Amino acid sequence: MADQLTGERLLDDMSEAERARAERVESVLPALRAAAERADAEGDFPVEHVALLREAGLLGLVVPHEHGGLGGTLRDLAAATFAMGTACPSTALAYFFHNTSASRGLLPLEAIEAGLFDEEEIPPVRAFAAKVLDRMGSGVWLANFASESVKSSAANITIATTARRTDGGWVLDGEKSFGCATGVADYYLTTAKLEGHETAEGLATFFVPRDAPGVSTRAAWDGLGMRATANNGIRLDGVFIPEEEALTIPGAFTRMLRMSRGSFVGNQLAIAAVYTGCAQNVFDEVVGQLTRRTFADTGRPIASSPMHQQLIGEMSVNLETAYLWVRRQLDLETSQPPLRPKPEVFRQWRMGKGSVTEACFQVALGAFKASGTSGAMMGGVVGRALRDLAMGLVMTFPAERGRLEVAQMVTQAKENELFTTAERP
Amino acid sequence: MADQLTGERLLDDMSEAERARAERVESVLPALRAAAERADAEGDFPVEHVALLREAGLLGLVVPHEHGGLGGTLRDLAAATFAMGTACPSTALAYFFHNTSASRGLLPLEAIEAGLFDEEEIPPVRAFAAKVLDRMGSGVWLANFASESVKSSAANITIATTARRTDGGWVLDGEKSFGCATGVADYYLTTAKLEGHETAEGLATFFVPRDAPGVSTRAAWDGLGMRATANNGIRLDGVFIPEEEALTIPGAFTRMLRMSRGSFVGNQLAIAAVYTGCAQNVFDEVVGQLTRRTFADTGRPIASSPMHQQLIGEMSVNLETAYLWVRRQLDLETSQPPLRPKPEVFRQWRMGKGSVTEACFQVALGAFKASGTSGAMMGGVVGRALRDLAMGLVMTFPAERGRLEVAQMVTQAKENELFTTAERP
Amino acid sequence: MADQLTGERLLDDMSEAERARAERVESVLPALRAAAERADAEGDFPVEHVALLREAGLLGLVVPHEHGGLGGTLRDLAAATFAMGTACPSTALAYFFHNTSASRGLLPLEAIEAGLFDEEEIPPVRAFAAKVLDRMGSGVWLANFASESVKSSAANITIATTARRTDGGWVLDGEKSFGCATGVADYYLTTAKLEGHETAEGLATFFVPRDAPGVSTRAAWDGLGMRATANNGIRLDGVFIPEEEALTIPGAFTRMLRMSRGSFVGNQLAIAAVYTGCAQNVFDEVVGQLTRRTFADTGRPIASSPMHQQLIGEMSVNLETAYLWVRRQLDLETSQPPLRPKPEVFRQWRMGKGSVTEACFQVALGAFKASGTSGAMMGGVVGRALRDLAMGLVMTFPAERGRLEVAQMVTQAKENELFTTAERP
Amino acid sequence: MADQLTGERLLDDMSEAERARAERVESVLPALRAAAERADAEGDFPVEHVALLREAGLLGLVVPHEHGGLGGTLRDLAAATFAMGTACPSTALAYFFHNTSASRGLLPLEAIEAGLFDEEEIPPVRAFAAKVLDRMGSGVWLANFASESVKSSAANITIATTARRTDGGWVLDGEKSFGCATGVADYYLTTAKLEGHETAEGLATFFVPRDAPGVSTRAAWDGLGMRATANNGIRLDGVFIPEEEALTIPGAFTRMLRMSRGSFVGNQLAIAAVYTGCAQNVFDEVVGQLTRRTFADTGRPIASSPMHQQLIGEMSVNLETAYLWVRRQLDLETSQPPLRPKPEVFRQWRMGKGSVTEACFQVALGAFKASGTSGAMMGGVVGRALRDLAMGLVMTFPAERGRLEVAQMVTQAKENELFTTAERP
Repeated sequence: MADQLTGERLLDDMSEAERARAERVESVLPALRAAAERADAEGDFPVEHVALLREAGLLGLVVPHEHGGLGGTLRDLAAATFAMGTACPSTALAYFFHNTSASRGLLPLEAIEAGLFDEEEIPPVRAFAAKVLDRMGSGVWLANFASESVKSSAANITIATTARRTDGGWVLDGEKSFGCATGVADYYLTTAKLEGHETAEGLATFFVPRDAPGVSTRAAWDGLGMRATANNGIRLDGVFIPEEEALTIPGAFTRMLRMSRGSFVGNQLAIAAVYTGCAQNVFDEVVGQLTRRTFADTGRPIASSPMHQQLIGEMSVNLETAYLWVRRQLDLETSQPPLRPKPEVFRQWRMGKGSVTEACFQVALGAFKASGTSGAMMGGVVGRALRDLAMGLVMTFPAERGRLEVAQMVTQAKENELFTTAERP
Repeated sequence: MADQLTGERLLDDMSEAERARAERVESVLPALRAAAERADAEGDFPVEHVALLREAGLLGLVVPHEHGGLGGTLRDLAAATFAMGTACPSTALAYFFHNTSASRGLLPLEAIEAGLFDEEEIPPVRAFAAKVLDRMGSGVWLANFASESVKSSAANITIATTARRTDGGWVLDGEKSFGCATGVADYYLTTAKLEGHETAEGLATFFVPRDAPGVSTRAAWDGLGMRATANNGIRLDGVFIPEEEALTIPGAFTRMLRMSRGSFVGNQLAIAAVYTGCAQNVFDEVVGQLTRRTFADTGRPIASSPMHQQLIGEMSVNLETAYLWVRRQLDLETSQPPLRPKPEVFRQWRMGKGSVTEACFQVALGAFKASGTSGAMMGGVVGRALRDLAMGLVMTFPAERGRLEVAQMVTQAKENELFTTAERP
Repeated sequence: MADQLTGERLLDDMSEAERARAERVESVLPALRAAAERADAEGDFPVEHVALLREAGLLGLVVPHEHGGLGGTLRDLAAATFAMGTACPSTALAYFFHNTSASRGLLPLEAIEAGLFDEEEIPPVRAFAAKVLDRMGSGVWLANFASESVKSSAANITIATTARRTDGGWVLDGEKSFGCATGVADYYLTTAKLEGHETAEGLATFFVPRDAPGVSTRAAWDGLGMRATANNGIRLDGVFIPEEEALTIPGAFTRMLRMSRGSFVGNQLAIAAVYTGCAQNVFDEVVGQLTRRTFADTGRPIASSPMHQQLIGEMSVNLETAYLWVRRQLDLETSQPPLRPKPEVFRQWRMGKGSVTEACFQVALGAFKASGTSGAMMGGVVGRALRDLAMGLVMTFPAERGRLEVAQMVTQAKENELFTTAERP
Repeated sequence: MADQLTGERLLDDMSEAERARAERVESVLPALRAAAERADAEGDFPVEHVALLREAGLLGLVVPHEHGGLGGTLRDLAAATFAMGTACPSTALAYFFHNTSASRGLLPLEAIEAGLFDEEEIPPVRAFAAKVLDRMGSGVWLANFASESVKSSAANITIATTARRTDGGWVLDGEKSFGCATGVADYYLTTAKLEGHETAEGLATFFVPRDAPGVSTRAAWDGLGMRATANNGIRLDGVFIPEEEALTIPGAFTRMLRMSRGSFVGNQLAIAAVYTGCAQNVFDEVVGQLTRRTFADTGRPIASSPMHQQLIGEMSVNLETAYLWVRRQLDLETSQPPLRPKPEVFRQWRMGKGSVTEACFQVALGAFKASGTSGAMMGGVVGRALRDLAMGLVMTFPAERGRLEVAQMVTQAKENELFTTAERP
């Protein structure tokens, strides 16, 4: 299969339309790969990638045709982030973040379909959703953020950024971290808590232009890996956002989330595809090197030594493990009708996220050991993969946390069953 | 989903025909479950299960309708062995072995279709194949064997049983181990090496009636687990088999194997489904117990303690890991057209067999730890699962061996690529 | 070192006196080893071992010379249980339990020295302590128990057995589990709660004769492993114990515990030595077998295959890991002056118990995989070791629980430091 | 124990003389710690550390008093590299390399005592040994090298550097890598192969002055960790070394090695102490941070969350595991008389090296996960420890390789036993 596309290593049954979109992705990989080493060393997002991806139409990959996009689904997104992950994991990650913005357009439209909004609410919701999608479809880069600085024991994310009413719009104050494309994206799609609200009902979404007065980028963050993502985050000091650039209907955010198949705003598995792509690349690179390099005394490939055989076998299984979890999550989140009820899909992700990232990190660690001291460098495919994949261990939540959450779900579900049974007359 | 069938925990997209067959399986589970504890304690195959399964039509589960069977595929078989594995892993395993006999009918027919036999060979091959399938379809139990006693470093199985020509048939001598249903099956479908042949070309297949003169069962084997499978094996001392009860065309065996999707005669993944069913059952049992039992001081379920939460989380991930490998292998071996080339399907199984059995054993081990000293018994669901799943670790080959084999395949494939590249002008 | 004693594999610097005691242990090993397979199969404590050990003087191994014993220390005990563990882990375990009874004599004497008892209390405490030691020194077998049936989230053991005053003595009621030598020991040294007490201050110790009226043995417990220990436990229904056969001074129990170096009544590490001995034995056995057996095609030992080399390397490291934890705990609990403060010694055991038992179980699991299906039997050295060492995973507490307890100690110690620091003027 | 020295966490029974030497080490830790972050970031050996260590007398730590040193042993060296490892692992590693040079003085003197040199050889051997020790005792820094670039399947190190005779001395040519203090040390103590020799008998040792004509430093090596060690290595192009600055008696090198207790020139365990110190430091740092930082909603330390408790428990066990292996190796290599025969000591190190470095890396990985995204930086204690300890995984040999070597030793020892047994009449 000489013409197998990179993304087809993840998706083994692409449709023709999917292949066509995957070819656009394929076309940008050489440029991504060429820039990766230096981008990592300097810790800079290669800004030229924005134009590259825009020109390939890829900023609208998962945007419906009617909004100017390519009409792809989560399957395309996963194939794309996987493929980019083999070339430049940082770019793949930033691109992933951009694409998750599409949920802010797609999920509200689904929520309207599902009857979650009343007549009055529908027009502004629809208008905002269309704006998100149209902008993405037209080649605008939209950043968004995963985290703020306050930690609670009860929630994964705590929103402290506030929005207060003012003439013709809103004033935002707060600090956002762990997004990507800081200083690069055209807009930051920003979640804030409306003044006077204390619960998730008060969460609203705003288009914050990159260069709006009051917006500043935080100090660059010298990350261990995923260094070329411009993930420093922003500060918002009294930033004015006009009415029409916001979706502030109370409860719009939570109603939108109800439409998501898996966790949060969905799409999260595409981040796991980034890591899997990175792991596949370091595996290929190291097996290639170890097969080309030979022992001075026997002429046999270094890969054939018993230690290397053990490491390669273990890497193979770990790599395949990552694929299995990503593919299953993809099936669960895209199948029509749904294969499993939403709580199972959600629970699967709490297991899957950690399983993929642990497996991928083990691939990198095996590659590192197999390469020996000569590969133990800061850069190079091995050094970068080890650092990039270490980031996966902590992003969102570690495997240990996901497993404890699943245990709680399993136990509570079982307690509920007991209770139900006991109630029966 | 109150009416979810057990097998649907493995196959989440059953067709109506598959559901109908799965309902037959479901109907026998209570009897299997009721007999399991005693069958294990006594180490005896519950012979009444033969009639039970025959009456349910299940001895012909994967036999085509035209041969009197139910027309199921490998998907049905995996769902069935999984479901039986939740009730009585020993019976599931013995049933699995019976079903693998179908390959001796199905693969030759496929080989004829593929043009691998010439005009003269076709009639006897077709006749023998039909005999295998007709017998299974009519409710005959066919045992077969996985192993003999000689070990070579170069091959997984070495056949030392011999067949020599005599008037009107063949005389067999040898010893066979690790089959199931010894002394129970109606026939032993037996592989032997034709006199005068030294390679796999000389392998032939014989119907050996259970009570034929010269057939004896070996001493009962006091296994750690899977004790109710009657796997002691047989000795053949000058056993006469008439011509028409044998397939002795040289190369028939190896040509048949070429039609198999995955490893050996195929179907092997259904054994992994046995283990996965067993693991699911011990998980359910232990989580149930630990949720019902409470701490004397707090009244909270024992399952809620931090240690139990950690164990339950880890068991959950291990259990799901087993499902992922089984489902993937099933997709690879049943998809039309094939998703991946045969060498990849084969390689996947070398990884998958060990991954499933290790994951399942870890579930049992977690269940064992979670149950504490009170569950540390020889019998009971936990004690049995720990022993039954330990068997999985060594049957066919351990995970460590599978990984080393994969490493060799990966390395050689890469070396071949180098060679190919070097050859280009 | 042809004359290396088995115990010297654990203690590599035995004194002459220790060697002399270890020779007594060595002398009983052949009988223990010869009886082990059958004792396991039948699940019976070999009663003839009582006379064997008594005649070798070993029932007084850790009893001071002045009480008729051999004057050994915890070092001798560990060496002895290790050595017996290589021959018959069940006997080693039962012997361990007998020896822990010595604490009930030794610790009170130490507590008197340390001034923890006042003038009036000293005579009865001293008398009871002497009785414990004299009896052990004279060849009496004393059983004791690890557990009762009630579980609390806050404590490892909850005592529900009660003692109420009556003329000339006490009446005991309750149930005791997980001791050894039920129906075999001469006395059960039994802990009960004095009527009218709710805290540990009310715990008292009684000599309960094996055949006293009201004493019954519980149903035999069909354990997965350590089956020849007679650990069924007893029921006490209105059992009368005369005054002089009890130590009922309130707080005597807790004051005694304050003298223990490590956890609870001390000596626990000798149970870890049992497991280590068992692991060493299965390692030796399997490496021996795999070296003697050869591949039919190459004539090389099966042990030399890449898979076996991987397994043997991993077993070697696991086995050594068990030794390291046992030896360190022994140093911590026997060094004069103490190397580390008591809380550290205690914390070390919470880590060590689980680390030893996990490592030993991994050795057995490696041996099991290395042996393949032919070793996957209920009995034999491999099958027994796998089952005996599985018991180690759950006895007292699993590794997971020990680690969580250590985490709590570490965190609280650090919090206390913060608090202390903050308090400084 | 307010005045516990850092090194006493490793050695818990220091003599007074050892404490006095450890106090010198303690005195330099603040400066090492202060410089560590920047040294890592810039990848530069802090040259001022040379004067610091020299003025503290520490360049002669393991040099006998009669040669102007402090008279320490391997115990002092391990305590010192451990303590420095808590402050700046790079400096600890470079210091370790300097100290291993002492073997080139101490082992020849031991070999003379053992009668391995004849009358004629003794004077030049003694003179060279004295020169090594006198220089170290007087504050000279001696670098040496672990590796060259050629790899063989049969040996860990292959020496390709050559020495050829010339008037009044020798001319050296070659390339050396993976030493430390390149461009910093006063001399490079260099091993080369004498012209006309092909075996290890021809290995000789030379003092190569840092600035000798023909000596050049290789390009700086951008390592993942241990970046401040100046380990780039050197090239030697026709470097002239006078007669009296060399030890060229054939076989002197191999005879010297016979005196070493453990592996190679001994002392290797002190490198494991570097990693253990680093692991202890990142553990303390992270547990401290997580105890000080609290959840916004509950006010409880972040360390108290179930996930953090699991991680802290696992880190605790891993950290202790590293200590156990280092302490055991130290006992084996310093006890008088030897506790175990040399092959066991050697085998222990093949297991121990990997076990320590894997355990330490797991501590760093646990610390990394426990710190979450906010700790996932290139620098800081966590980021540095993760990278520094990753280096440990590959330096000398990975754990996997050590285990396979041990398996081979175990199997061959057992084969030899069989052979011996078979030979008996």
